[in-house]
Amino acid sequence: MEEFSAGSGLSGLADRAADGGGLTKEQLLLAGLTHSAPTAPLQLNRTANVTPGLRYRNLGKSGLRVSNIGLGTWPTFSPNVTEEQAEQIIVLAVESGINAFDLSEAHSGTRAEVELGRILTRRGWKRTTFIVTTKIYWSTRSEERGLSRKHIIESVKASLSRLQLSYIDVVIVHKADPMCPMEEVVRAMNYVINQGWVMYWGTARWSPVEIMEAYTNCRQFNCVTPIVEQAEYHLFCREKTELHMPELYNKIGVGLMAWSPISMGLSQSKDDSTIQLFSRASFRNKYSSFSWTEDETAAANKEGYGWMKERSQPAEESRKYSERIRELNSLAERLGCSLAQLTIAWTLKNESVQCLLLGASNVDQLYESIQALQLIPKLNVSMVQDIEKILENKPTRPPMVSTLALR
Amino acid sequence: MEEFSAGSGLSGLADRAADGGGLTKEQLLLAGLTHSAPTAPLQLNRTANVTPGLRYRNLGKSGLRVSNIGLGTWPTFSPNVTEEQAEQIIVLAVESGINAFDLSEAHSGTRAEVELGRILTRRGWKRTTFIVTTKIYWSTRSEERGLSRKHIIESVKASLSRLQLSYIDVVIVHKADPMCPMEEVVRAMNYVINQGWVMYWGTARWSPVEIMEAYTNCRQFNCVTPIVEQAEYHLFCREKTELHMPELYNKIGVGLMAWSPISMGLSQSKDDSTIQLFSRASFRNKYSSFSWTEDETAAANKEGYGWMKERSQPAEESRKYSERIRELNSLAERLGCSLAQLTIAWTLKNESVQCLLLGASNVDQLYESIQALQLIPKLNVSMVQDIEKILENKPTRPPMVSTLALR
Amino acid sequence: MEEFSAGSGLSGLADRAADGGGLTKEQLLLAGLTHSAPTAPLQLNRTANVTPGLRYRNLGKSGLRVSNIGLGTWPTFSPNVTEEQAEQIIVLAVESGINAFDLSEAHSGTRAEVELGRILTRRGWKRTTFIVTTKIYWSTRSEERGLSRKHIIESVKASLSRLQLSYIDVVIVHKADPMCPMEEVVRAMNYVINQGWVMYWGTARWSPVEIMEAYTNCRQFNCVTPIVEQAEYHLFCREKTELHMPELYNKIGVGLMAWSPISMGLSQSKDDSTIQLFSRASFRNKYSSFSWTEDETAAANKEGYGWMKERSQPAEESRKYSERIRELNSLAERLGCSLAQLTIAWTLKNESVQCLLLGASNVDQLYESIQALQLIPKLNVSMVQDIEKILENKPTRPPMVSTLALR
Amino acid sequence: MEEFSAGSGLSGLADRAADGGGLTKEQLLLAGLTHSAPTAPLQLNRTANVTPGLRYRNLGKSGLRVSNIGLGTWPTFSPNVTEEQAEQIIVLAVESGINAFDLSEAHSGTRAEVELGRILTRRGWKRTTFIVTTKIYWSTRSEERGLSRKHIIESVKASLSRLQLSYIDVVIVHKADPMCPMEEVVRAMNYVINQGWVMYWGTARWSPVEIMEAYTNCRQFNCVTPIVEQAEYHLFCREKTELHMPELYNKIGVGLMAWSPISMGLSQSKDDSTIQLFSRASFRNKYSSFSWTEDETAAANKEGYGWMKERSQPAEESRKYSERIRELNSLAERLGCSLAQLTIAWTLKNESVQCLLLGASNVDQLYESIQALQLIPKLNVSMVQDIEKILENKPTRPPMVSTLALR
Repeated sequence: MEEFSAGSGLSGLADRAADGGGLTKEQLLLAGLTHSAPTAPLQLNRTANVTPGLRYRNLGKSGLRVSNIGLGTWPTFSPNVTEEQAEQIIVLAVESGINAFDLSEAHSGTRAEVELGRILTRRGWKRTTFIVTTKIYWSTRSEERGLSRKHIIESVKASLSRLQLSYIDVVIVHKADPMCPMEEVVRAMNYVINQGWVMYWGTARWSPVEIMEAYTNCRQFNCVTPIVEQAEYHLFCREKTELHMPELYNKIGVGLMAWSPISMGLSQSKDDSTIQLFSRASFRNKYSSFSWTEDETAAANKEGYGWMKERSQPAEESRKYSERIRELNSLAERLGCSLAQLTIAWTLKNESVQCLLLGASNVDQLYESIQALQLIPKLNVSMVQDIEKILENKPTRPPMVSTLALR
Repeated sequence: MEEFSAGSGLSGLADRAADGGGLTKEQLLLAGLTHSAPTAPLQLNRTANVTPGLRYRNLGKSGLRVSNIGLGTWPTFSPNVTEEQAEQIIVLAVESGINAFDLSEAHSGTRAEVELGRILTRRGWKRTTFIVTTKIYWSTRSEERGLSRKHIIESVKASLSRLQLSYIDVVIVHKADPMCPMEEVVRAMNYVINQGWVMYWGTARWSPVEIMEAYTNCRQFNCVTPIVEQAEYHLFCREKTELHMPELYNKIGVGLMAWSPISMGLSQSKDDSTIQLFSRASFRNKYSSFSWTEDETAAANKEGYGWMKERSQPAEESRKYSERIRELNSLAERLGCSLAQLTIAWTLKNESVQCLLLGASNVDQLYESIQALQLIPKLNVSMVQDIEKILENKPTRPPMVSTLALR
Repeated sequence: MEEFSAGSGLSGLADRAADGGGLTKEQLLLAGLTHSAPTAPLQLNRTANVTPGLRYRNLGKSGLRVSNIGLGTWPTFSPNVTEEQAEQIIVLAVESGINAFDLSEAHSGTRAEVELGRILTRRGWKRTTFIVTTKIYWSTRSEERGLSRKHIIESVKASLSRLQLSYIDVVIVHKADPMCPMEEVVRAMNYVINQGWVMYWGTARWSPVEIMEAYTNCRQFNCVTPIVEQAEYHLFCREKTELHMPELYNKIGVGLMAWSPISMGLSQSKDDSTIQLFSRASFRNKYSSFSWTEDETAAANKEGYGWMKERSQPAEESRKYSERIRELNSLAERLGCSLAQLTIAWTLKNESVQCLLLGASNVDQLYESIQALQLIPKLNVSMVQDIEKILENKPTRPPMVSTLALR
Repeated sequence: MEEFSAGSGLSGLADRAADGGGLTKEQLLLAGLTHSAPTAPLQLNRTANVTPGLRYRNLGKSGLRVSNIGLGTWPTFSPNVTEEQAEQIIVLAVESGINAFDLSEAHSGTRAEVELGRILTRRGWKRTTFIVTTKIYWSTRSEERGLSRKHIIESVKASLSRLQLSYIDVVIVHKADPMCPMEEVVRAMNYVINQGWVMYWGTARWSPVEIMEAYTNCRQFNCVTPIVEQAEYHLFCREKTELHMPELYNKIGVGLMAWSPISMGLSQSKDDSTIQLFSRASFRNKYSSFSWTEDETAAANKEGYGWMKERSQPAEESRKYSERIRELNSLAERLGCSLAQLTIAWTLKNESVQCLLLGASNVDQLYESIQALQLIPKLNVSMVQDIEKILENKPTRPPMVSTLALR
């Protein structure tokens, strides 16, 4: 990894990938979305602190320090990755200085917890050196079970058992349940923390109002407040992160752990796929301008990534996105990186993002994503302005309307 | 069970019972109060979601979802039901989608917990799929022990041990004790919840004022509030449920788990018994117009249901009830169901009833009670009005008297 | 015991004692202070509810029901009582309906807990049927250790271990420590309760102001409040119980568990000893007009009750007490009971006394003390007035002095 | 040890040391900073209470009683002291009546906990008789981990395991972390206390403002407040202790456990070393006029005390200190004690110091430090004034500046 610490940009990355897999220049630019390079045996030394650009930040206004990039394990523990490959990915993450590992029952089911647990046990890393975040997931489509004290406690116990851990660092409540009182949720989270099963709690896909309500209930009932919201954030999904998260951080100390289909590496082929990847994301989430839902990712998971079928979308919209992506690709080319790497670097440039989850289904993919850290200093003011000009989607708050004026 | 999902009313029920036991039409109408049909070997598949009319509702304003019918296990674990028969009843309930099982030391003693525990262990159902509610019972007739922290904790520990469970979903305090401070009760309930022994707590046979007092104490001492009151509710016992429970639900989130001698199936023979069943219920409970007390149910239990002896009751009262029951029976006949099924459906029609406990001493009895769910949509406005005309007991609040007027 | 249930007064007691030991009438009158009768093999049946005069009362304003007489085990586990004799005493207490057993490290050391624990284990009584109260004792004479969180927790753990119990019903803090903040005490007591080691807590030898301070701290820090003060109360030690305890009970729910050297049976011989017993008690406790200190009881314990040596006391005082005791003895004689029995009955006559601790070093002594319960109804208004005339020590509050008048 | 209880000053010390090691008078004066005397086999009896001048004081406004001198175990568990020697030191401390043992990961690493744990287990002292204080240490130089709930809980668990104890008496948070919210710290400390792992908590090297902030957060969230600040205090480091600690004690009950390089015995040779010892201490800590930092003590530890190399320091400053130390040495000589003993006695003279930590790498060194207790009464008013005249460093608060005057 030393070759990158000399500040030589990402050219080393290109060399390495080229040597390893004989890919064309163009393919390399998309390397962040690629894993066609054969997996070489992993012989890295633990040189965490020399990974250029890797930093540790307090998650929200808590004392917990997470690496600015974490590993989202969903693609790692997917059906077409062997346990050996998965272990190699985890090892690379640890050796790169990544200390946060995120699990997501919604995406990869409970198998991820079992496999990560086995790897952690086998490797024998000190419990103090890594941070495991997992989720309390409840099906929004079944009426039989929602969020409840019973479900929260049962979920946490089951996760602990699958992970073979005596405590989880952060438990994240995946979606709020309008049918479950917030008091019950915060008391149950406080309970699992007081039992010593969990260190901190957070939320995922909650609206800012729901997060504020949780905070208010914590204060009312003297419960521990949440420290993090996990949210989608990338070039085409900006509203929640850019408009609302800074306020939540400043007012109640809730930080941001970001993820996106791009940072998770959910594409395997070239230019066209990238466009499709973006263009397929849905518009349903009201806090994002362009965001994925679980439905689609679940489908993606099920169909083994061979899911790139067209669905109806306004032709005009689609054309516009294709054009923007072409322009971003050119810009990435000028920077000597892939579009995925550009996206990762651009996301991390935002101070609100305390940790960005990277995903990988092979070692090279993760390796290449990590290199994006070196790109961050290159995203200077003029570069950022160029990107804004291409995107034309900088979110703004609607102007305050005086209620006086309405009289 | 599929034959019922076609919305064909309850005729299928009649067919099935007729095939199985060769009963007369008239007998079938009272099937809900009957268990004379020989117990056929149970070969149902788990088709919970297709039980017509079965729904899951949040219990009170908690996140806990219960099926709208639960199993009150008192008749199931009574002396003249074998453990094999009891297990068949439990299995039918589970396969029908029922997820709530209620135990009552006051009625069936501690044996019910032991047997249910054995069945749950033997069957190996996932702990997340069922909800066990049991009670803290204290003898109101002995001065030696009342409700107290000591008694609450000892009771819960003993129940856990008998049930072979690591936690009970809802513990219900059976009757308030005017000699025990409410602070002690709510702190003790909060304690058993914080120990992880219990998920939620509720009350049974508490007056609305006592429930409000409990809630106030919970708020004062930052304890978990109760989520449910268990109360008797049927055609002749309406006041508490119809006048007070909606207010408790709206103001403090306490829901209703209802039961009645009829829904519990506490009669074995024909028409006359039904009349006797109703007419024997006492008038002692000040929140019901017509309600049973434990004294009588305990006696019933002891005497093995062969307890139908006349006791002194105003002759006029008795005659009136007999007449009403005859009219209701005719109405049930027109609907093609038994009086018991009509009662069950009518009870569930009330939105305040989040869960109605059904009881059964054999599989057929439970099966027939469950069919009453299909009757609910048939109870339209005019039908409900017809019933009110027969009953003439719709409870009303006394008019507010202005204290100004009293001057 | 049946002979006494016929309301035949205490004559049966005299007969029995006379049969057993051939004592003179005069000796029998002092039976409550005597144990010269040979210990007969115990063959009583459990007839708890027929012990005349035995009642169960809520301790303080808690839900815990204690028998109005409890067993103070100090004399029972003293050096000159064998373990077999001690067990017989405990058995008699249980069979008489007594459910409260009080231990006192200050008096009998830690041996009492070990022996009571062995007896409870051996007998296998249901844990729900008895109430064990023990103390947190700290030496007021050593500066090395006082009351503290450390000492409270260590004491409770040690007591649990010695008693072989998983919880103690009531833990009593013996004397307040002016050097230890009240916040620390109430938090530590709340801690041992929240650990499940203790059900309730109380105090012994605390001033009313200290008890109020504890209560205030409990309210401030949302901790469980104390339910009982253990205090000395008898004919010659009345001020605290009669002037202060009713106020504490009414305002903050702290009840009274009383004891006295007389009720504890700390004398073995005749008339003269009684006088000495009273006259030797010290005047040091500012809340009693005539009270024992641990110093003397410790000395008594050490010297095996053979401690009746004169110490300097105002001759006038001594003469006055001798006279009063002679008059009380005559009165007892008229009632057909011993002076000790009269004292016990008189103490229990006071509604503030929810539980009076009786002590015994043999079965007969306890048996005779229990008979005093039958005396209570005989203490009618005129009898009580007679006693007051003899005592001339009814405590009164000093008149309120208006601070206005002081100007 | 009896020879010193006769109030014969410290002459006995000189005799003993002289007999044992044949040292010159001058060497003896520095005995507190010396360990050149061969370690004699230890044959002391437990005569704790006769150690002249040893007292037990409440630590802060808690109920915990500590001896006015405690053992700071850093030099004891340093690399060049064998485990046998360390055990002898601990035994001497216990036999002298010392009940407080302080561990410091920052200085001696985790080995001290392991060794102390082994000694405590081997000796089998009653857990109630000693007080172990240990620290939560976090590296201020690594960004990877700071103070956090995770770190606090993991640290305490690790300490418990190394010490083989079921609880630690006082856990001390070593330095506040400006990156970790105070709410998180106080909730985590409250958690470890509520788990029963810790009895009390305190701070080390916190500013008065940080301590006040912790207290305020404890009050806000109903958590247990800290009872002690551990701070450096000696003749040349006075500001924090003399200006701020009395206020913290009076207002929020936080007491002081003091230490200094001199009391810890961190010098092995003669006069010159003493000067160097003082003169080398840094000026970096803003609350001390002359204080050591961990950096230097860590270096000292690493270099096995052979670290007395000159570093750049203002020549003028250095000269001034040398002169003062010479004068103090003369004064000590007149008192018949070493400069180290004078320093210890002078520190203990301050009422704010509830416990002064003494360190020793051999038995004689500790023995001689303990003798300093007898010096305290000799430090009368005129003696103290003489010292002040030499020191010329009595800290004073800056005069209050009226903001009115600034207008």
